[in-house]
Amino acid sequence: MESISMMGSPKNLNETFLPNVANGIKDASKITVGIIGSGDFAKSLTIRLIRSIHREHYTSLWDLKHLLVGKILVDVSNNTRVDQYPDSNAEYLASLFPDSLVVKGFNVVSAWSLQLGPKDASRQVYICSNNVQARHQVTELARQLGFIPVDLGALSSSREIENLPLRLFTLWKGPVVIAISLATFFFIYSFVRDVIHPYMRNQQSDFYKIPIEIVNKTLPIVAITLLSLVYLSGLIAAAYQLYYGTKYRRFPPWLDNWLQCRKQLGLLSFFFAVVHVAYSLCLPMRRSERYLFLNMAYQQVHANVENSWNEEEVWRIEMYISFGIMSLGLLSLLAVTSIPSVNSALNWREFSFIQSTLGYVALLISTFHVLIYGWKRAFEEEYYRFYTPPNFVLALVLPSIVILGKIIFLLPCVSRKLRRIRRGWEKSHAIEETSGSVPHFSPERITVM
Amino acid sequence: MESISMMGSPKNLNETFLPNVANGIKDASKITVGIIGSGDFAKSLTIRLIRSIHREHYTSLWDLKHLLVGKILVDVSNNTRVDQYPDSNAEYLASLFPDSLVVKGFNVVSAWSLQLGPKDASRQVYICSNNVQARHQVTELARQLGFIPVDLGALSSSREIENLPLRLFTLWKGPVVIAISLATFFFIYSFVRDVIHPYMRNQQSDFYKIPIEIVNKTLPIVAITLLSLVYLSGLIAAAYQLYYGTKYRRFPPWLDNWLQCRKQLGLLSFFFAVVHVAYSLCLPMRRSERYLFLNMAYQQVHANVENSWNEEEVWRIEMYISFGIMSLGLLSLLAVTSIPSVNSALNWREFSFIQSTLGYVALLISTFHVLIYGWKRAFEEEYYRFYTPPNFVLALVLPSIVILGKIIFLLPCVSRKLRRIRRGWEKSHAIEETSGSVPHFSPERITVM
Amino acid sequence: MESISMMGSPKNLNETFLPNVANGIKDASKITVGIIGSGDFAKSLTIRLIRSIHREHYTSLWDLKHLLVGKILVDVSNNTRVDQYPDSNAEYLASLFPDSLVVKGFNVVSAWSLQLGPKDASRQVYICSNNVQARHQVTELARQLGFIPVDLGALSSSREIENLPLRLFTLWKGPVVIAISLATFFFIYSFVRDVIHPYMRNQQSDFYKIPIEIVNKTLPIVAITLLSLVYLSGLIAAAYQLYYGTKYRRFPPWLDNWLQCRKQLGLLSFFFAVVHVAYSLCLPMRRSERYLFLNMAYQQVHANVENSWNEEEVWRIEMYISFGIMSLGLLSLLAVTSIPSVNSALNWREFSFIQSTLGYVALLISTFHVLIYGWKRAFEEEYYRFYTPPNFVLALVLPSIVILGKIIFLLPCVSRKLRRIRRGWEKSHAIEETSGSVPHFSPERITVM
Repeated sequence: MESISMMGSPKNLNETFLPNVANGIKDASKITVGIIGSGDFAKSLTIRLIRSIHREHYTSLWDLKHLLVGKILVDVSNNTRVDQYPDSNAEYLASLFPDSLVVKGFNVVSAWSLQLGPKDASRQVYICSNNVQARHQVTELARQLGFIPVDLGALSSSREIENLPLRLFTLWKGPVVIAISLATFFFIYSFVRDVIHPYMRNQQSDFYKIPIEIVNKTLPIVAITLLSLVYLSGLIAAAYQLYYGTKYRRFPPWLDNWLQCRKQLGLLSFFFAVVHVAYSLCLPMRRSERYLFLNMAYQQVHANVENSWNEEEVWRIEMYISFGIMSLGLLSLLAVTSIPSVNSALNWREFSFIQSTLGYVALLISTFHVLIYGWKRAFEEEYYRFYTPPNFVLALVLPSIVILGKIIFLLPCVSRKLRRIRRGWEKSHAIEETSGSVPHFSPERITVM
Repeated sequence: MESISMMGSPKNLNETFLPNVANGIKDASKITVGIIGSGDFAKSLTIRLIRSIHREHYTSLWDLKHLLVGKILVDVSNNTRVDQYPDSNAEYLASLFPDSLVVKGFNVVSAWSLQLGPKDASRQVYICSNNVQARHQVTELARQLGFIPVDLGALSSSREIENLPLRLFTLWKGPVVIAISLATFFFIYSFVRDVIHPYMRNQQSDFYKIPIEIVNKTLPIVAITLLSLVYLSGLIAAAYQLYYGTKYRRFPPWLDNWLQCRKQLGLLSFFFAVVHVAYSLCLPMRRSERYLFLNMAYQQVHANVENSWNEEEVWRIEMYISFGIMSLGLLSLLAVTSIPSVNSALNWREFSFIQSTLGYVALLISTFHVLIYGWKRAFEEEYYRFYTPPNFVLALVLPSIVILGKIIFLLPCVSRKLRRIRRGWEKSHAIEETSGSVPHFSPERITVM
Repeated sequence: MESISMMGSPKNLNETFLPNVANGIKDASKITVGIIGSGDFAKSLTIRLIRSIHREHYTSLWDLKHLLVGKILVDVSNNTRVDQYPDSNAEYLASLFPDSLVVKGFNVVSAWSLQLGPKDASRQVYICSNNVQARHQVTELARQLGFIPVDLGALSSSREIENLPLRLFTLWKGPVVIAISLATFFFIYSFVRDVIHPYMRNQQSDFYKIPIEIVNKTLPIVAITLLSLVYLSGLIAAAYQLYYGTKYRRFPPWLDNWLQCRKQLGLLSFFFAVVHVAYSLCLPMRRSERYLFLNMAYQQVHANVENSWNEEEVWRIEMYISFGIMSLGLLSLLAVTSIPSVNSALNWREFSFIQSTLGYVALLISTFHVLIYGWKRAFEEEYYRFYTPPNFVLALVLPSIVILGKIIFLLPCVSRKLRRIRRGWEKSHAIEETSGSVPHFSPERITVM
């Protein structure tokens, strides 16, 4: 008779399992042994549920070692920090019990997942083991319990599995911090220039501008800066590869991390762009707009100006709005293809076309959008309040660098060399000529620009 | 030689299978037997397709019972009502033919699914059986036919599988009925107050307000009420658990159903909020707005008022718009994480943070949005037409209750007790102290607030 | 000892595999043989990686034929054109080595996929083989390497698999070409009528209208025409079935292709509609609008008109906007259900209700939207500049045909006949009465209207 033992204390797992456990024993050493009593599968299978055992207590199971020989041990434990130990809990368990069949699984199960429908992905449990038979049996058990098991192969995947429930927007943290810092800085910058300056100069009270106008001057700068950061990382990676003349050299960690969170930077950029659009569209709804308008009408009548038309201003705003909508349209396409299921419906070339080619076009068009907004004002002294440049000048810094960099990398001489490097060519020795050596490859070094 | 027989009449399945059937027999008793003749799999496999056999006719197969011993019977039938019979068709079939290997599957197949690409999820077929071997063989057959089989374990899953094609927006029905009822009520309420009242009072014809203004007064109330209903259910569930001092007591059915359709209520709330935004943004485009504006300009000139600026009105609207955009931004995040593939890319803590924490913040901000809109008008008599309170006062009822309730549950004394209950503590006896007893757990009792 | 050999040169696959290859040999004939040396799986498994071998070089392996008997050969090759050869590379390989076990797989793997997280669908590899054992072994190998294998059954699926990486927005090409052609035509049409005509007639310079107004006259016509094309294909298919009195007759290729890309036409229609909305909402933000407004106020004051209210114009625009928002709301629902994971969460009846019923309602409402915009202007001579009809008249052509067609197909006599045909009835002989014959079914012939 075979037996499966469960170790560790995943959140709520005990709750999940207990209803299926026909008889359970719990002694002072807090070991619960349960036998699933329903279904034909259970006839040949015994499940041992060992609750509240943390990694530190694994050794306390040594007394049972002789009983566990040839038995399946299911490690359901989680860690409290990412990469807490050099090896995973499951691997550690396997080293303690070399004669048992250790399977990692069920640790991602939460009570919530049980509330949702049968097709729901939250019913997925990840399972891995070095023993194929044991893995198949636990997979079968998971199905029996109503889960959708995902076989992740060898026990080495357990580290990844154990980190899953800990991860809390891991890739989002950096980009969100950057976005908030940029937003805070540019909000204060605009506030000083557009509210404090006129107040100090002419005692003009424009504090009503804070909730909408100042916010709406901040949002687009953050959006275009984040979008530039997405593509800047790719350019730096390409420069790095060109400089070292190989793609087999590991990127420094900061660049690695930056490259990893491009999707998050891009989505945040899109979010800021969309909120900028919402604010802009609300401008004509404001009472302040109405009053300014009525006063302008009053003045036009009093000045007896029949036609106040200013062709240059008309063109500036028409072009400005037009480029804005275009770049938003392109950014939307990029955002939609970031939805996991849309993403996975695309192949590599389609994804690359949208994320790289369309992304650069979006950056180019939004740069024009800013340029047209600025128009000739970058060269007029009155816009340099407190000796600071207008916002749109700051907004142009990073995009200009990225577009310039991209143009350099598109030059035939540079792009040819880069293409060769990406195909495996190395400055020192071409990979095609070596025969016995294995390139020291790591996936992080592959970049998309 | 093994054989697989298919029973039942899934919509279009016959069409799906027939092209693969090399030779078919159809007799007066409407039994089609087909043998798949292509591929190496078919060499060792015979498929029997029995069409148009409803559950009621299963017993008519008794004559064949001796022929079906040890054979795989694939039940492809559907029901015409959800939970039509106490047991599933497949379980009934298994009880009739205990010596055959009954597999449930293929019943969700529609002709449509064949038209779509190879990665498409509609090519999924759900398969379950108590016999692992038979299940694997039918799974293999499904692959052979170009489907993507999903192994759902034991035959007890067949009830779930048989209900799948019947389900027609099951969880949407309640929330949609509530939304439509609310919308109808508030539309009539606004119509009476804002069109009928001025017409009766001053013969003022404001009927042009019906298509946009009255609709746009209705939408936000429905949106905020639906959002409040999402969180009210969680509060009631928490109160229930506190009252009975346990989480192991089943919720009454109405509360269970309410908790189940929170996602639908939330998405409907988002939909109404977005349409409200669309209507609001269109306000300045209207001809009526233009005429009112021109007339105001005319009057300002004639009254010789140089500056019509009203600082309080300016601030009210700037703040109102600003809070509106913020709550829409948060609601969008909630809506995006409801897309199944985005949802499944989040772990339990991330999902809970977005749906619970951000959701409450969104409710709070949209309550401010309404409060600022109302401003001091809740205390002015002229807004109580026909002795009815203004719309925004009604809009505030439910959100205020929910926010107040949440504040109470956040009080240290209450929240500590609730946390203990959720960890398994019970008023009568603490679960940690019992040893032999198994808690009477049911997944529906787990709640998120 | 079993062995697996990999053939072909998928982009980057060598990079993927090499780090796992413990020792590799590469001779002049460019054959790399590697043995995976890590994990218990490798103990019983030898992998041969044969790089840079194109289909043309398969025959050069003939010398090894005796060595490969009973061995697993993994074909990882891709083609450079869709359906380049009548049979797939893997099938060709299988015909060359009838005594080896040919498995197709890994060809969709790109370096990019390795950078993304563990749940990411890009880690999927498609595997197929006529030998179930070999397929399972390669599936297990894929898991070992950290991929998520998708078992696609028999080797005949290899053609589909080999075309996957080549496909570049295949279904999008036609619809995009149609959309761009329509947009170009209507842009020029509007430009001639609204800019050139007033310039030639009265030397009136309206060139500022090009970036926004002319574009915004083009977008809605393209949107409604594309939406009509979605449903026109279904009507033609139904007419075809009615005419031939059967659903078992293959549609002509042009109709087949048209039916296949309805989803793409619909999404493009939605995209154009959304951009149309963005442009429309930006109208009041423009400087030109402000100047025109101020001038109108000036004139109203000078003409001493106290009230410029025009009830008919007010109603026209209120209704126009109202219908516009409604059709956009419906189109959004259609677009959301096109997201693959949302789509797969719906069953056949739910999907059909949204895509067919709601789609037709959206078409009907957007037709009203156009009709109200046009109002009585279709009958006024001044709108027929250069003897051409106004844009909205052209916009109504296709929707009117589709709505009329749908009404005809909804007539009881027609719909009853169509329903019978769709259930399998044939003009010549009813399928229910034939016994031995198998209908010549093809999935393309199933249509939704």
